[in-house]
Formats: sequence, C-alpha cells, structure tokens
Amino acid sequence: MTEALSEPERRDWLRLARTENVGPVTFDQLIQRFGTARAALAALPDLARRGGRAIKLATEAAIDKELADGAALGARLLCAGEPAFPQALAALDPPPPVIWVRGRAELLDRPTVAIVGARVASAAGQRFARGLASDLGQAGHVIVSGLARGIDGAAHEGGLPSGTVAVLGGGVDDIYPPEHAGLYQRIAEAGCVVSENEPGRAAVARDFPRRNRIISGLSRAVVVVEAEFRSGSLITARLAAEQGREVLAVPGSPLDPRAKGTNDLIRQGAAICEGAEDVLRALEGLGGFREPERGGYGAGPAGDPDDALREAVAALLSPTPVSRDELVRATGAPAPLVYAALVELSLAGRCELLPGGMVATA
Amino acid sequence: MTEALSEPERRDWLRLARTENVGPVTFDQLIQRFGTARAALAALPDLARRGGRAIKLATEAAIDKELADGAALGARLLCAGEPAFPQALAALDPPPPVIWVRGRAELLDRPTVAIVGARVASAAGQRFARGLASDLGQAGHVIVSGLARGIDGAAHEGGLPSGTVAVLGGGVDDIYPPEHAGLYQRIAEAGCVVSENEPGRAAVARDFPRRNRIISGLSRAVVVVEAEFRSGSLITARLAAEQGREVLAVPGSPLDPRAKGTNDLIRQGAAICEGAEDVLRALEGLGGFREPERGGYGAGPAGDPDDALREAVAALLSPTPVSRDELVRATGAPAPLVYAALVELSLAGRCELLPGGMVATA
Repeated sequence: MTEALSEPERRDWLRLARTENVGPVTFDQLIQRFGTARAALAALPDLARRGGRAIKLATEAAIDKELADGAALGARLLCAGEPAFPQALAALDPPPPVIWVRGRAELLDRPTVAIVGARVASAAGQRFARGLASDLGQAGHVIVSGLARGIDGAAHEGGLPSGTVAVLGGGVDDIYPPEHAGLYQRIAEAGCVVSENEPGRAAVARDFPRRNRIISGLSRAVVVVEAEFRSGSLITARLAAEQGREVLAVPGSPLDPRAKGTNDLIRQGAAICEGAEDVLRALEGLGGFREPERGGYGAGPAGDPDDALREAVAALLSPTPVSRDELVRATGAPAPLVYAALVELSLAGRCELLPGGMVATA
Repeated sequence: MTEALSEPERRDWLRLARTENVGPVTFDQLIQRFGTARAALAALPDLARRGGRAIKLATEAAIDKELADGAALGARLLCAGEPAFPQALAALDPPPPVIWVRGRAELLDRPTVAIVGARVASAAGQRFARGLASDLGQAGHVIVSGLARGIDGAAHEGGLPSGTVAVLGGGVDDIYPPEHAGLYQRIAEAGCVVSENEPGRAAVARDFPRRNRIISGLSRAVVVVEAEFRSGSLITARLAAEQGREVLAVPGSPLDPRAKGTNDLIRQGAAICEGAEDVLRALEGLGGFREPERGGYGAGPAGDPDDALREAVAALLSPTPVSRDELVRATGAPAPLVYAALVELSLAGRCELLPGGMVATA
C-alpha cells in the first residue's frame, strides 16, 4: 500500500489494531488475507468463534475517544503502509499497525541511531552517552531512545540540539519517569515523541518489549551503553539484530556489573563502540530501508481450515516458540490453511503470533 | 636434539649464543647448517667476512665469568634442545638458544598463563589481575609475567601461592623496579625467575621485545589487563598470536585510556576476559606443545652463495621486514643459497633475521 487512507479507512485500521488479541503479526495477516481493515473486522467474529472463543471488537466510542485525545495533544496518527509512515518501520516484518507521533515527525525519516542502556547508570556512562549523541547528531544522525532514567535521558539530552526521538511504552503523553517532564516537553517541541499505544494510557511492563521493537526498528544502528546481564537494553539489541540493524556495545570493566551486558553483546558479535566514529564506520555503505517480501498466506487459495486441523495445530503449541514452517511440516497440511488456523487461534487468545514467523501459546 | 649436552658442548653453545650479531634465528640456522655449536663457531669468521665485516667471537673468559656468576646465584643454564629445556620454548621457531633459571624450574613445564599489562595501572586493574592470577593458580595454572610495576606485580602476587614465573629483560639477578626487591626474593624462592641474558646484566630498552617473546612463549594463553594504545603489553599479545598462543584481553570503559589497548585487541579478535573461566574456556581442548618442523636450509645442498647473489640479496633489504621466500622469488636463486647469504649478512651486522622467516636491515 502506498496511498494515504481515507478518514473512514483510518478509523477501521485503528479499530482493527485496537481489537483484543490482534497483535502486529495477526494484523498483518488479516490485511493480507482480507485486503482492507473493514473486511477483516467483518470477518473477525467468525474467525475467533472458529478458534474457540467469542471476540470483542474495539468499540466505535473507544476509537472516537482515541482520535479526539490525539487531536487534543496535537499528535498525528500514522498507519502502516501510508506514505507518511516512517520507512524504517515500514521495513519491519510485520510493521506496527499504527503509531502516534508528537512533534517533528519528519525526523523519523532522517538517518537514525538508537542509544539505550541502564536506568541506574554511572555518571561516566551518562557522560559517554551524552557525548556520543552529540557527536552523532553533528554528523547528521537523529538519536532515538526510550526516555528512561540514566542512559536514555542522557542520550536525548545530547541529541536535542540536532534532533532526538523518544519512544514511549505508554501513550504519547505518558511521561515517565516524572523527573523527565522537562525533557519530555523539550523533545515534544524540538524533537519527536512516538508511541504505539493510545493517548492517555500508562505503560505497563508488557508494553516495553513492543516499545523496544519500535526503538530498534526506527534505527539503522543500536548502541548499548552500560547494561546489566538480562536487562531490557539487551532485548532491544536482540530485536535490532533480528531486524538486520547494526548492534554496537560500549565495553567496560569486568568489575563493573553495568558492563556485564555490553561485554556479553561484544562476545556475541556486537561491534565495539568507543565513540561516534565506530558507529559511523558500522553504518558505512548501508543502503536505505526496503519493505520486505512478506510470506503471509502465500499464493495458494486460502480457504478455511477444518476443526481437526485447527485442533491439531493447537495441540502442537507450547510456551516455547516454534516456527510456522515447523507446524506446516508437522501437520502435513497446506501452509495457507495452517496460517489461517493460527490466526483463528490467536484471535481466540489461544496462541500468540510473534515477529519472525514464530508461534507460542499465549 | 633430545640429549643433554656435555659440559664442553654447553660452553660452545653458550659462546655461540653470546657472539655478536647472533640472534635466535641466526643461531638456529647455524646449528641446522653445521650440526654443532663448535663447528658453527669455527665457520663464523669466514661467514662474516664473506658478509662484509669481521666478527668478534665471545671470549672464553666471558663465558667462564658467565658460568661462574650463574653458579654463584644458584641459577641453572638451560640450552635449547636439551631435555630440561621448557617444552613451550622448544616449540618456538626459533627457540631462544639459552635461558638462565633461578628457583623451581619445574614450574616451566606446568600449564602456564601469562598475565601482563600497564605499569601505571589502576587500583581496580591490579585487583583484577591479582584475583585472576589467584583463581587460575587454584585451577592449576602457573602465572607468568614480567615483574614490572602495576599489572605484572599484581599478577605475580596473586600467583605466588600456587606458582609464578618472572621473566626479566636483564640478567636473572637484575631486580627492576627496586620496590619489587621483596617480591623478587619470594619468586626466586617459591617460584621461578627466567632470563635470556647473562647474570649481572642490567636491562636496556631493546631487551624487552625478546623478554616479551619469552613471556608469551612460555604460556598457553596471554591475558592483557589494562594497556594503553601502542604499549609493550600489546607487543606481547602480538607475539603470542604469532606463536599460536591464545590471546585474551580485559575490556574497559572508552573513557579510561588504559582500556584503549585492550579494547583494540578485542576488536582484532582477542577473546574477552572477564574472569578465570574465560581463560579456562579458551584453553579447553588445547594439546601440548610440539616442536615445529623448521624450514632452515631445506633439503638441497647448501654450498656457499657467491658475492653477486649476496649483494643482490642485500640490495633488496630495507627497514620494512620482508619474508625470506620473497627474497628467494626476487633473486630467482635456490632457497638454501639465499638463506646462507642472509646468515652471512646478519653475522656482518648488515641485516636482522626475525622470527617468522622475516628479514630487515639491522
């Protein structure tokens, strides 16, 4: 899709995105199968019932409220596939269905680098992040981060004069931590604030993996500055690698627990970042973002899976993600039918479709 | 050679090693060509004259004095090729012709790890080195280092209870820095002190590259803890890599200049060392040391190079090292004749034969 949606189409798009159990993968599959959000919404109750449970569509009233809240904030709704949607996010498989942006949305299509790291960061780590953001800014890069305490805040500070983007886990107006209220205001004016969620929503823990996927997805490279073992920044780094983005990490002393995560990234192949020149070198020769060829339902006729196939697929699932291709092999059924069964199960809340073609029980 | 030398043979061996312009490569080539040190000594004046300059053999009096000085210290002379010579050094191409050892020479044939680093080291770096040495010692490894200030001293301290080896640039009794006199005494009693040079000699700058080659050569792995850019520890690391030993480096913050060198080693492929387990993992599955097949003069008849060939070889040399094979190709002459010409030129002080088959003007 490369045309802007009409207002009614945008309402349907948003309503489909806000309907329960519709994550980015399911959204993408539904659009590929039914062509429009309106057609997908019409089919949803039936699909979910086949999956085993009734589904509640997002209400028209909730959509009215979201659009009004966003307008009151001066925020813009961007839908995946529209020309104004950031190219970097459009290149994700699947892209987030919608984002809200406040401030200078044009920054999202400039060359971007994410700088993320520990919330409880050392003074030295924060100084490094601020300097790195400033140097990369002077070299023409927009700095993306998550507005968190510590490294994130320092990266935004360093990037403010040249351009910075804060991606929030809650709504586009969900300022957290409270001491970053001033920083938030400056970013909303001189930079850009992005959220996948509806305005007014306060972030909860499970919002952050999706927030992190937007941070890495917006960026050509992700630099991790100070991160403890098993911290959120490492998830962002892993997502970046899966998205084909460059991953860099700042090394540190083994005696500093905040270097455990970054040193471990370097062990796993992340490039060493000692300054802006390392990032610029990593970006050399990288081309623009391209929309992926999506597998989806493939070329064959989709049809509807029967109950036996759907339950056979459900029985194969566990909390450990497996690939859809494995399920096709295990069932011996045509891929389009297995994919259709998975969408039905996901709408019924019986499985979760993950980016990268993986599936697990919800 | 696997038999111990007789006393007269050891005198000759030492005398050849102490003769001017006879470095380890030339020594090795001479022994391969002439079979014994005595035969090589007899041929030397002629070879050097052909190279273009008279040579002064080490005097018998100097050898008497060296052997007496060593005996007075209770030190032992070990000659390359003797059964008592450390296997790790025998595996070098070429090995150092002789070493003096004080203390427990049997430590040299135990599994060894070198820990080296900055002289002006941080307290944290020294603490890390001490702890690493102690942990590796408890895992059965002897700790090798250079008795220098900073990291070296800390590594020896940590390794003393389980066994540590100090390799000196000067003679085996050349205590430097002076504040390490107490540490030296403890190593000479409970550990082992090693030197390639004659007792009584004070180290000068050009002794250290050869000292570093012994440190890495004695060790299965070299760990660099804190090193500035272009520092001596990086030379030790490079030598270790050339010798096929494992190289590890301790990462550090880009804001700490003492981490510049170690981070750079990691960029170049050194393994990250955050503790003893990283070193033990790097050593897993490594076999023992094996003496290399030496190229030397090859199988063909050696004969003597004529003046034209010798000068053609000399004209091809510069301060930038080239390989002997390149010189063979460039002259089109048989390899044994080119190698013989190089030995003559090196004895005359007109070139330097470097480990790894490289040659440069002296």
